[in-house]
Amino acid sequence: MSRETHQACLEACNACATACHHCAAACLGESDVKMMAGCIALDMDCAALCQTVAGFLARGSESAPALCVVCARVCEACGQECGRHAADHCQRCAEACRRCAEACRQMAT
Amino acid sequence: MSRETHQACLEACNACATACHHCAAACLGESDVKMMAGCIALDMDCAALCQTVAGFLARGSESAPALCVVCARVCEACGQECGRHAADHCQRCAEACRRCAEACRQMAT
Amino acid sequence: MSRETHQACLEACNACATACHHCAAACLGESDVKMMAGCIALDMDCAALCQTVAGFLARGSESAPALCVVCARVCEACGQECGRHAADHCQRCAEACRRCAEACRQMAT
Amino acid sequence: MSRETHQACLEACNACATACHHCAAACLGESDVKMMAGCIALDMDCAALCQTVAGFLARGSESAPALCVVCARVCEACGQECGRHAADHCQRCAEACRRCAEACRQMAT
Repeated sequence: MSRETHQACLEACNACATACHHCAAACLGESDVKMMAGCIALDMDCAALCQTVAGFLARGSESAPALCVVCARVCEACGQECGRHAADHCQRCAEACRRCAEACRQMAT
Repeated sequence: MSRETHQACLEACNACATACHHCAAACLGESDVKMMAGCIALDMDCAALCQTVAGFLARGSESAPALCVVCARVCEACGQECGRHAADHCQRCAEACRRCAEACRQMAT
Repeated sequence: MSRETHQACLEACNACATACHHCAAACLGESDVKMMAGCIALDMDCAALCQTVAGFLARGSESAPALCVVCARVCEACGQECGRHAADHCQRCAEACRRCAEACRQMAT
Repeated sequence: MSRETHQACLEACNACATACHHCAAACLGESDVKMMAGCIALDMDCAALCQTVAGFLARGSESAPALCVVCARVCEACGQECGRHAADHCQRCAEACRRCAEACRQMAT
């Protein structure tokens, strides 16, 4: 894979982790928290995994592509759930998740 | 500080991180999620910081004591909030937080 | 998968992360650090991934089994490399990696 | 503290974590690894702590400023050690560490 693909994936992972951490906390401040429970749970998974993948990528680990396969799926699941909610933080998180899922798929091939 | 203090703190951090991750997810499954919002937010902080401190301790980092000062406060705040809720996962998390706070204070001196 | 398999994997991940963090730092104190370079690099991957998987397991995430597949491979690679070195921290790390690889494979099925 | 200070600190933490992960792995590939041992050890601390702080900042945690005090010191120590080595990855890491230390000090006040 090219240096550009690698760098793009690293940036997408950092951006996605940030969006997911922010979304999780912002969801907890919504009036109907119960409706956001699935979103918060996926945000926690996605934030943690994206930060881990960012570390693997920055270190140039040869396990990065295999981890990106799983990360792409977690990002996709999180993006789909966030995409169902109208709140700004959810919509921005959904977009970051979709971009990261795509970048992880590129890394994984 | 003694080897025992160091080892006890490492184990307390791992146990507290596990309890906080579990409590956060279990709180999201409660019928009144809104009531648990503060608990979930503190669980996320406490789980992440305890895992980081565990790494510093396992590596024997000289920054571990300074980080333990902050971790003790985060554990205490999380333990106090969890202690207010009757759910089993909250009560067990509160206990893990209190033990970790005490172990971190021992490390920090 | 059973509750016992899940709990065993969580404990194996925490133990493996601790052993890997410790081994990485101890390798840096060896007289021939160059010989330990591969070991340190794998320790960093393995410690980070095991801590992430521990979080997924403690939260009961449905992505845990997929992540365990990758974690088993990373643990195996780290355990093989550590097993080549005579130092106590490497031998103990190799054992923790093998146990965690096996526990992750059980989780993944 | 202002929204700009907060956002700048979050970006500096992500950039510093990336630089430290990269530097640690690149140091392991240097011909004289032993000379880089202190640099690698500090990179591991700094990378882990910056990622944790980034999470606290993204969630808007009220413990972020207290954690930033410790992070500033870890970044400073890592930046000083990296700054002693001529390798590109060390010089870039030193710069990222200094910026992050400054951003963390701003957050902490």
